[in-house]
Amino acid sequence: MRKLTGLGVLGLLLVAGCCPMMRACPCAARTVQGKLRHVVLFKFKAEATPQQIKAVEDGFRALPSQIPGVRSFEWGTDVSPEKLSDGFTHCFLVTFDDAKARDAYLPHPAHKAFVEVLKPILDKVLVVDYVAKK
Amino acid sequence: MRKLTGLGVLGLLLVAGCCPMMRACPCAARTVQGKLRHVVLFKFKAEATPQQIKAVEDGFRALPSQIPGVRSFEWGTDVSPEKLSDGFTHCFLVTFDDAKARDAYLPHPAHKAFVEVLKPILDKVLVVDYVAKK
Repeated sequence: MRKLTGLGVLGLLLVAGCCPMMRACPCAARTVQGKLRHVVLFKFKAEATPQQIKAVEDGFRALPSQIPGVRSFEWGTDVSPEKLSDGFTHCFLVTFDDAKARDAYLPHPAHKAFVEVLKPILDKVLVVDYVAKK
Repeated sequence: MRKLTGLGVLGLLLVAGCCPMMRACPCAARTVQGKLRHVVLFKFKAEATPQQIKAVEDGFRALPSQIPGVRSFEWGTDVSPEKLSDGFTHCFLVTFDDAKARDAYLPHPAHKAFVEVLKPILDKVLVVDYVAKK
């Protein structure tokens, strides 16, 4: 009982220090070392309508729930003041546990269907994958 | 005492579920919603030596300790099989709490000194910043 309590106190201290349920998770923004990051940039054609662009955004956002192996997903539109974006306006960051998960993602029917929605309004795409390290 | 033990058990369960000291932190790869992501891609000149490229990698890696406001940092070299990297080989992902922190980072003397190391071997650079959302 004494031992459990001691462990419990230790547990509480650890929780207070690292659990997302107790406070903003301190590890949320840390390096996810060893994970495979899949960085995708889009520039859309000038004639692309806001509705078409929204369909691409929503289509991409839906992929993690349609394809197994996606560890996390986020995206956003360029807000850099440096003017070095080469016209790319959209960035999507897909995180996989490893290259195997990425290799299953790329040819997945849901991904292929998404590409068909994307293609008609795509001007340029750029993809870089890297294994995250510090 | 009973109450503390109960809390302790809860604490242990939570720790087992979410602490990076117990297992890979499940939140580590999650979306860091609201954070400003600064994505930087480099392509180096063909004549850049491995030593020069290493100096750039190390110089970039040193910036988070030299400039306040960097929430997290990671990098890696392209391993995408898609051949859509447009020659970019290096990706650096710098995370800031907000645009204000990014705005303080860009003109920081340490960042400017780094750019001087980079310039002689830089072929192309691409920068996209986005506020991470799901």
